[in-house]
Formats: sequence, structure tokens, C-alpha cells
Amino acid sequence: MNDALLKADAETIERDIESLAAMVDSSKPGWTRRPFTPWYEQGRQWLRERMVEIGMHVEIDAASNLIGRLPGSDPSLKPIMVGSHTDTVTGGGRFDGIIGVLAGLEIVRTLKRAGIVLRHPLMVVDFTAEEPSEFGISTIGSRGMVGNLPEEMLERTDPSGLVLRDAIRLAGGDPDALPSAALGPGDIALYLELHIEQGPVLEQTGTKLGVVTGIVGIHRYRVTVEGRPNHAGTTPMTMRSDALTGAARMILELEAICREHDAEPVVGTVGKLTVEPNASNVIPGRVVFDLEVRSLSVDIMEELICAFKRRTEEIALNCGIAISMDCLSKSEPIRVDEDVQAIIRSGCAATASSISLPSGAGHDANQIARIAPIGMVFVPSKDGRSHCPEEWTDYADVALGVEALTRTIVLYDNLRMKNE
Amino acid sequence: MNDALLKADAETIERDIESLAAMVDSSKPGWTRRPFTPWYEQGRQWLRERMVEIGMHVEIDAASNLIGRLPGSDPSLKPIMVGSHTDTVTGGGRFDGIIGVLAGLEIVRTLKRAGIVLRHPLMVVDFTAEEPSEFGISTIGSRGMVGNLPEEMLERTDPSGLVLRDAIRLAGGDPDALPSAALGPGDIALYLELHIEQGPVLEQTGTKLGVVTGIVGIHRYRVTVEGRPNHAGTTPMTMRSDALTGAARMILELEAICREHDAEPVVGTVGKLTVEPNASNVIPGRVVFDLEVRSLSVDIMEELICAFKRRTEEIALNCGIAISMDCLSKSEPIRVDEDVQAIIRSGCAATASSISLPSGAGHDANQIARIAPIGMVFVPSKDGRSHCPEEWTDYADVALGVEALTRTIVLYDNLRMKNE
Repeated sequence: MNDALLKADAETIERDIESLAAMVDSSKPGWTRRPFTPWYEQGRQWLRERMVEIGMHVEIDAASNLIGRLPGSDPSLKPIMVGSHTDTVTGGGRFDGIIGVLAGLEIVRTLKRAGIVLRHPLMVVDFTAEEPSEFGISTIGSRGMVGNLPEEMLERTDPSGLVLRDAIRLAGGDPDALPSAALGPGDIALYLELHIEQGPVLEQTGTKLGVVTGIVGIHRYRVTVEGRPNHAGTTPMTMRSDALTGAARMILELEAICREHDAEPVVGTVGKLTVEPNASNVIPGRVVFDLEVRSLSVDIMEELICAFKRRTEEIALNCGIAISMDCLSKSEPIRVDEDVQAIIRSGCAATASSISLPSGAGHDANQIARIAPIGMVFVPSKDGRSHCPEEWTDYADVALGVEALTRTIVLYDNLRMKNE
Repeated sequence: MNDALLKADAETIERDIESLAAMVDSSKPGWTRRPFTPWYEQGRQWLRERMVEIGMHVEIDAASNLIGRLPGSDPSLKPIMVGSHTDTVTGGGRFDGIIGVLAGLEIVRTLKRAGIVLRHPLMVVDFTAEEPSEFGISTIGSRGMVGNLPEEMLERTDPSGLVLRDAIRLAGGDPDALPSAALGPGDIALYLELHIEQGPVLEQTGTKLGVVTGIVGIHRYRVTVEGRPNHAGTTPMTMRSDALTGAARMILELEAICREHDAEPVVGTVGKLTVEPNASNVIPGRVVFDLEVRSLSVDIMEELICAFKRRTEEIALNCGIAISMDCLSKSEPIRVDEDVQAIIRSGCAATASSISLPSGAGHDANQIARIAPIGMVFVPSKDGRSHCPEEWTDYADVALGVEALTRTIVLYDNLRMKNE
């Protein structure tokens, strides 16, 4: 195949990104397009027109996901799905999610330019409300598509009193049909998602493409440190039970434990911490902090937490403080199938420099992994930033990501042909 | 002199403490008697009756302090003043301030029982509003007495809109007369204050009385630590600028610096700290914390802060974070005159076991020190607690403190006679 034929057009991608970037709530900072708002509907209307323009059949599914379909030449094959989301966090950027949906459009255009008809049907999906929503739920659309949006979630309300069930209906979905419409194992041949890295690794290693090895699991704990809230002036240094100096030691232990662990990448973070009574003249009596560890291995996460508990118990004993630790949540890691990684690596290798790395954040792929093999490609995030107005990926880099996905799809489509 | 004659009566003291403890705002936790409230006025009415009962002349001064006067035998001598306050913090206890005023009553009763007429006049003062008030000012009454309540403070309003000037007037004061009524150097022979320690030293050393060597100065700084608020999942441990792990190192440095300093007692505390954005999945981008150091020596405080700055700059460099430090306030230490300490030590020695220690908290004595020699005696605080319902000092220990003060007054009164 003529290699140049599968290149994505960076100018078209730039124009598409800028078009969606104009459909935002200008009363909010950055590029804000929250789900179930007029700006979101406007963006979807624009997407629908682009899909129709390039010959796709467009529909809204029961979960209100916007889907463009391109038929394949072999009616016996299940579809390849490409997708992501066009909603943003408040004060978000122009790339997160968006480039994964626009990639779908450009893949279809590229295939047409190259005169390629896939054997598999192709689905391009704009999943509804991937980001944390006002209903306290993320990945609403992809959850709904795979039957993971239970009644309890559908009955939740946002601060304005809107029930999620009604929001989905207003967005064109059919919440009552969710159970019967849910896709199951075997319904999708392969799911692929292009996404910004949201981290600094590609940029700092000077690499254009990331082959995602898996999506990390997250184990989150709340740690409560109890000291004695004595007077900061009248209590000598040797007679204190200071919950904050105790917590400081624990925070540094978590950092040390994660840094010591170099067998497989792990991260551990204390992002949230509160001090009581939080007055400059009172020794902190209580500190509550949330810690999380992320890894592709459940064993490693459990090992880290175990080491943390052991060391903090020593600290508590030495400092005359008490600690308790409550598990807040555990999400299990998702590993990308080795065969899928191999095909994506080939697609990337034909396009630009690439490395393998885990995804430290969750995506719609987490949900689709319940029913189908998934794969992801990352493109560089300037300064590792995301979920902020400064979020940036060069248009040329987005185009390389789209090209890598196109090549992966073509390789997969051919591979299946050879195997059969 | 018959030694037993100067003993204070613990039962009377207990009855007095319990009487005032009944005049509190029962809608608030603990024993709450905020200044300028009906409960405060009720307590003062009760105090006034007790003063009259024991033959004192009672007045309210320009700053609305309640003053009982007992004439001395030598009209040429300036008064000895004994005082403290009967207002409490919200949710406070039954001892802080209160025992210093009640001590005045019991001293007068003891002198009468012992048949002693002092050469110096004696003033017993219930200072108005010592605790942090709704006007954002502490030690209002003692400030006013020594001409340190400027116009700017008098014009401040509390959340209900009440102007401090009017509050003082309603409490019987005469704010317009403050400048002319202010006491100056030479107007008071000696100021003595009995107070609960508010710390654990007496209890933990098994000592009944504390001779206060001085009231520590406080230097307070706000430290701002700036990192990069990146995604907690996608940013490897080696590519982070975590403001919280940086701040944790700094907090532990302050603790280490103060512990290393054993030449003279110093304390250093981080009591207040906030994290931004304070979300469990975001590496802290900014931490702001308030630190304070307290000591009887300005040089030591400056040396500690200097060492802290040097070490935190190293931390900032190593961790890729930025710090800035702003001075919030500096209050200078007050040292109790060696001669006054010697007399108090004698008074204490004749009463019970005693040690010398600094006061880590501020008192009305801080203000009176502007115009007169001051001295203070501490009695033990159970578990070092104060400003809380659990605040407790055994009545027998309060009685020992009153006795020590009585002996100190008699010694001082006699000493002056010998010197003259």
C-alpha cells in the first residue's frame, strides 16, 4: 500500500478542532462544553453534519451516544469502534476527548481518499458525558452502551434537580431501552481510542506516539491522623502530639515507597489534606488526607499500601499519635491484550517514534473493555497539562496519532482476513 | 508572721469559681461568657457585690474595666495591681482568666483575716475582653488602661454592626476619656497576675507553681509553596513538582530546628495549612502554611527563621518547587524583671513546689508591662488543656496559686518598707 495515502491531514484536523472550540460556554473559563448543555448539543449537531457529509449513517443510541456507522464489505464481521468524548471539564481545553472523536472522522476521510473499503464495519462514537458530571458519575455514555448504568445511577439528580434518566432522554437517548440495547462480549471486534497523554512522558522523552499497555487501577484510602490540639505557645516541643508533623512524615513515606518501586511504574499521591482546627496558634489535633496509588498490577498496589501501613504505624508509635485508614475505592487495572498492543505498535512504527506506557487516567475505554478488546494511542501533552485552558497538543502531533490509528485499523482488518 | 494565716481558702475559691461558672451562655458549648453579653454583665454585677462585701471601693474605668480598690496605709505609694479577665472564648472553660480575678478577692479576704493592712493601695481588676473578640482585638481593657487602644481600634465593628466605642460605653466605660485617663509609667508599683499554665509542664513535672520568667514573643510567617498541579495518575514520580511533599519536608525542618535548639526553650508550629486544588487526583500545585516561632529572645527567633529559610531554599531547589515567605506579625517578648522574679520565687517557695518557666501565651500582663513591672504565677492545667470545656485546675492548686500571690504581695510591701 502506498504509505503516503494513509497520512492524516493536519489542516483538516486543525479546522475541526477549532470548529468545536468555538462551541463553548463563554461565561466559563477555558473551553468549557459541559454535557447536556446547548453548547454540547451544538457540537453534536456539527459532528452529525460532518458524519453525514462523509457518508456515514448517524444514530443516537439508548445511552444518547452519537454514533456514525460505515458499512464493511464482510457482513459477517463485527464492527471496529473508534471513539471518545466531546464534553469537557469546566475550564478545560480543546483536545481531551475531542481528538479521539475527530480522529474517527479523519480516519473515514483517509480511507476514502486511499480507496480502502474495510471488511469490518466501522463505528465512530461520541460518548456522552465522559468527564465527572453533575450527577456524580463519569463515562455515562460508555457505561450505558455496555449495560453498566444501573437504575440507581439513572435516578441521580444534578444540582438543578434534573434526573439523569431525563437528561439522557432529552439528549435523544432511550433510558428505558438501556438493558435490552446493551452491547455484550462479541458485539465489537476491537475498540480503539486516540487521546492526549495528559502527562509529561512523551514530551520529556521526545516521542510522538504512546502505545498504551493498560489503564492503571486506583486504590484510594482516607487516612485520619489524631494528635492533641494543644496551645502552640505553651506546649514544649517534647510534649506535643502534632497530627501535622506526623502526617508530613507519612506523606514522605508514601513518596519514598513509590520511588523505591522501580520494577513497574507506580505512582502514589496525597492530593487532598485538611487540618483541624487549622489555626496558627493551635498544634494540629487532627489531619485527614486522601492517598491514592495507581498501577497496572493489583499485587503491586496492595504491596505498596501494606508497606505504607507498616511504616505509618511506626511513625504513629514514635510520635504519640493515632492513625486510621479507610478504603475509599478500588478500581481494577485494565491490561491491553498483547496481540492488540503488537498491532498498534506496528501501526505506530510505520508513522513516527513511539514508546509503550500505561494510561494513568481513566477513559471511555475502561467501560468498553468490559465487552471488547481495547487499545489506545497517546499523543504528547505540552507540559503534561490537561483539564485546563493551557492543555495543548500540536496539530501535527494529533495528525500523527490519527495516522497511527488508521494504520492500526487497516492492519487489523487485513490480519483478520489472513487468519480467516 | 504566722505562716498559716496567709493560706487561701480552697472552699471559698471553689464556691466563687462555681458561681461564675453558672453565669454562662447555655446555648454555647462549655462555659461561654463572651464580653459585652448579658452573662458577662451578670458576672460583673456578682463580682462588684463581692468587692463591696469585702470593703473595696468599686469603679468602672474609661476602658470599662471593673476595678476594686483597697486603700493602703501609706498615701505616697502607688498601688499594687492584681488582675485578669472573666470573659472566655466560645466553648471555653471555668478557669482561664477567672482565677486571676477571683485571686484578688481572696487576697483581700486573707489579708483581712490575717489583720494585715498593706502600705500600698491594692487594685483588683477585671479587665474587659481579654480573649480574641468579635472586633478582631484582644486585651481590649488592658490596652485601654495603658493608652494602647487607638482610635482605629475603637471604630471597629463586630459582625452585628456594634462599634467597639459604643460597646465600651454600654459596659460603663467612657471611650472619649481614654487618652486622658490612661495610666503611664510610675502609676502602678507592681502588676501581678495568677493564671492557669495552659500547657503541660507543671503537671508533667509534678510541680504546683510556675514562676513566669517572661512572656514569649511571637514571629509569624506565611509560607507559599508553588509546585505544578499535574494529574496524579499520568505524572511519574520523577517528573513531579509536588507542593505538598515539599511543604512536608519544610514542616519537619521547622520541628527539627526547634528541637535542636536547647539553649533556651523555643517552640515552632505550623498550625494552619491549605492545599490547592485539594483534589485527590491532582498533585498539589500550591500549599500555603502559617508558621510561628515563640521565644523570650528576639535573637533566637531570628536565628531560627534564618535557619528555616536556608534549609527550605535547599528543599525548594531539590524538589523543583518555589517558595516565598511573608512576615505576618512580630510581637516582642516581655521579660519579667529579675528582682520581681526573685520576690515571686520567695512567695512561691513558702507555699509549695515551684519551677521557673516562660509563658507561651499572651495575657493582660503584656499590656500592663508597657507602664509597670509585671509578674505572673502559673498553676497546673490538667493535660495542658485550655480554651475548651475540659480545661481544669484542681481547686486546691488554685488556692496554692492565690497563697503564693498573697505572700508575694506581703513580701513586696515589706521589702519596699525596708528599702525606703
